[in-house]
Amino acid sequence: MEGLLTRWRALPTLVACSRQLSGCVPCSLHHCAPGRGKRLLLSRMFQPQNLREDQVLSQEGRSGDLTCKSQRLMLQVGLIHPASPGCYHLLPYTVRAMEKLVRVIDQEMQAIGGQKVNMPSLSSAELWRATNRWDLMGKELLRLRDRHDKEYCLGPTHEEAVTALVASQKTLSYKQLPFLLYQVTRKFRDEPRPRFGLLRGREFYMKDMYTFDSSTEAAQQTYSLVCGAYRSLFNRLGLPFVKVQADVGSIGGTMSHEFQLPVDVGEDRLAVCPGCNFSANMETLGLSQMNCPVCQGPLTETRGIEVGHTFYLGTKYSSIFNARFANVHGKPSLAEMGCYGLGVTRILAAAIEVLSTEDCIRWPGLLAPYQVCLIPPKRGSKEMAATELMGSLHDHIAEAVPQLQGEVLLDDRTHLTIGNRLKDANKLGYPFVIIAGKRALEDPSYLEVWCQNTGEMVFLNKEGVVELLSTVQVV
Amino acid sequence: MEGLLTRWRALPTLVACSRQLSGCVPCSLHHCAPGRGKRLLLSRMFQPQNLREDQVLSQEGRSGDLTCKSQRLMLQVGLIHPASPGCYHLLPYTVRAMEKLVRVIDQEMQAIGGQKVNMPSLSSAELWRATNRWDLMGKELLRLRDRHDKEYCLGPTHEEAVTALVASQKTLSYKQLPFLLYQVTRKFRDEPRPRFGLLRGREFYMKDMYTFDSSTEAAQQTYSLVCGAYRSLFNRLGLPFVKVQADVGSIGGTMSHEFQLPVDVGEDRLAVCPGCNFSANMETLGLSQMNCPVCQGPLTETRGIEVGHTFYLGTKYSSIFNARFANVHGKPSLAEMGCYGLGVTRILAAAIEVLSTEDCIRWPGLLAPYQVCLIPPKRGSKEMAATELMGSLHDHIAEAVPQLQGEVLLDDRTHLTIGNRLKDANKLGYPFVIIAGKRALEDPSYLEVWCQNTGEMVFLNKEGVVELLSTVQVV
Repeated sequence: MEGLLTRWRALPTLVACSRQLSGCVPCSLHHCAPGRGKRLLLSRMFQPQNLREDQVLSQEGRSGDLTCKSQRLMLQVGLIHPASPGCYHLLPYTVRAMEKLVRVIDQEMQAIGGQKVNMPSLSSAELWRATNRWDLMGKELLRLRDRHDKEYCLGPTHEEAVTALVASQKTLSYKQLPFLLYQVTRKFRDEPRPRFGLLRGREFYMKDMYTFDSSTEAAQQTYSLVCGAYRSLFNRLGLPFVKVQADVGSIGGTMSHEFQLPVDVGEDRLAVCPGCNFSANMETLGLSQMNCPVCQGPLTETRGIEVGHTFYLGTKYSSIFNARFANVHGKPSLAEMGCYGLGVTRILAAAIEVLSTEDCIRWPGLLAPYQVCLIPPKRGSKEMAATELMGSLHDHIAEAVPQLQGEVLLDDRTHLTIGNRLKDANKLGYPFVIIAGKRALEDPSYLEVWCQNTGEMVFLNKEGVVELLSTVQVV
Repeated sequence: MEGLLTRWRALPTLVACSRQLSGCVPCSLHHCAPGRGKRLLLSRMFQPQNLREDQVLSQEGRSGDLTCKSQRLMLQVGLIHPASPGCYHLLPYTVRAMEKLVRVIDQEMQAIGGQKVNMPSLSSAELWRATNRWDLMGKELLRLRDRHDKEYCLGPTHEEAVTALVASQKTLSYKQLPFLLYQVTRKFRDEPRPRFGLLRGREFYMKDMYTFDSSTEAAQQTYSLVCGAYRSLFNRLGLPFVKVQADVGSIGGTMSHEFQLPVDVGEDRLAVCPGCNFSANMETLGLSQMNCPVCQGPLTETRGIEVGHTFYLGTKYSSIFNARFANVHGKPSLAEMGCYGLGVTRILAAAIEVLSTEDCIRWPGLLAPYQVCLIPPKRGSKEMAATELMGSLHDHIAEAVPQLQGEVLLDDRTHLTIGNRLKDANKLGYPFVIIAGKRALEDPSYLEVWCQNTGEMVFLNKEGVVELLSTVQVV
């Protein structure tokens, strides 16, 4: 109790000024294993990357075939681990990449006025019965009953919930609109046949935004605004995409587009017109439609992975839940809605699918889990004298390039040759791999710097390394 | 298609260097409503704070009584909105506070070597049957069947899942240990009577960490290390806590402690000894125990809210799932485990419970959703000439105090008096409220600065404001 009393007394008052309440110096963001200092050491990572092909296959034997590159690579290098069909453990590298992706998404959504909320996964049957989707969604909804026998589903999407939330605000004025409410949360869908790893799972992270406008014109402006933010997102990630006209499906509404990453493994068939800007998901076209409806030229087929989807909903949901606002004449008026999804875990896998080679993962630069991997010499080798050089380079980068704090990993598995560690680093796709090879012993030292996203290798001294790395953008 | 081709051509190669892949300038973190510039305007927030007491009461009528201050205040000012019993929508201010809390938790966990993972919510019945908890947990587990009639629960905790995950790594060496794996995810528990808002919900965010060590000594060191990180966390938040000996409950193991925030509304009864450091949850003591088991002095009773819980598990779970590593002699040996929880949404509500007055929310400085609220003069008032002064102060702070980017809100509801807006700001608990009152017209201008966490008010000119605000710590 004395300890407790001391603690109590040490606080000036319970309601102290914010400087007092948050008086400690923020900790370094470094991982630091107890007693091993502040350097990020690869040997201490929970990052199982030595799986053999047969192990990877047997791991997924239960839940389906290894059907695409991203799934195989992500299992092989220890980015994900299967839990049950369509459900994966995200391992530390993947969590880092996903958190970066969420930061980019937050920036883009907030730049257009998006406000982040967080709605429960448990969604009551009554909400879904109101829109008839309780029946319509069939077996895709995961359903359960609580201890009082009340029925719920696990939300795959939240039109019902968010519309009821906005409808509960009784004093909305047109002056407050638009509202762009979004969340980044785990969603659930009982896929008949989950496959392709994170591309089609039963549990996945999604960014879903719901917009509320005071007129159809304003809602269409908002629709363009969100599409623009999606464009900006994929451009920043360096992912080539195509925006196609799409089917509204069970969500409903009157207009819909998909953002697709063109890639052979994609499950969607897209029709694009080489003659004009027209492009569409083929499910929106008649079976016999071979020509572009705009310019009448012949359509070309390609395949894509859907990574974003936008819907103009009109008043479909606001009319059911009575989501109204006072219009310019003071009269109650139904909100015009849109909804906008981005598959967060899916974008990660799709980016790997698009950017990687058969054997080596490549990341969008902004999303790489770690930007830099340092490979010191093998223990007992001639170059061993350069070992501490790499340690001090690690510390020097942390100091000279503040945005790379926590982004530089030291591959301290010095019982392995440089070649073997470079092979691992190549597989994992760190944008920059820096090796203390023979020329590290020269005076001044030169280091081998592999820019893995361009495939270039250059020799640089310490200053050159810092100059190169200070151009790296980190989110 | 032309548009598409242009986009493709504009990208030098698919696998481009990271500078190319992330070539755009990052967007400002500001909310910015379309066409309204970059200033954060209160009038555009989805932040319903004008609820009357009777509305708050009727909202919760379905799910129980308004039983504590934090629940009442959080409903009143629009921080949460009830969805179904024990399930809440977290509104934008709360999401901001929670994201800050998660950043502080990440810093503390990573400072001791924690690595962040993310495990699915759906947890298969077979895992839980292996430990007998499928039966033991009874009605607290939310259970469901998928379309193939396979049974799952929604994880309230993840000992089974994480131990099976680590057990799947067949080549672990003692040199790699300890592993400290943690996640911050939504958890589910079918409370018989959810109440107290975010303090006891059915769906809530929790940080759960699981540690794997090579010996009991190492595991006990890790236990101390995590307790130290928890201490550091609550100290940084300015929340007085007491660490008490606790019951192991259904989790099991041989040693357990709770981190409790002493407060009257707390559901836990704690016995603390004024004579020595002993403190315990009363459920660990015999009913007749009136004296301290250490110094024999009389025990004092107090109440607390459990915000953290630590368990030393030994090999309870590793023996069931066969989570082994090669020890120093190369022989397989069972990992010694610990598990460590922090109630994330609960800490938010508990902090509000502890720090707030009956009518006004107060936040730990680090967690306040916005640090600063600027209140320009009422439209049509004498001071109206100072309106633009507040706009330019907003921009000046953003420039001069970079860490406050996105932290400064402009209360542009200038149809309201300064007094009414100050009342709202007081309720919401921004650490700093800055008002353009009468002295704003002096030359130089003086602004009224309310430091809400200390209750002080001072007059400062622009430079003084910047000097004060540059001391604010933001996470």
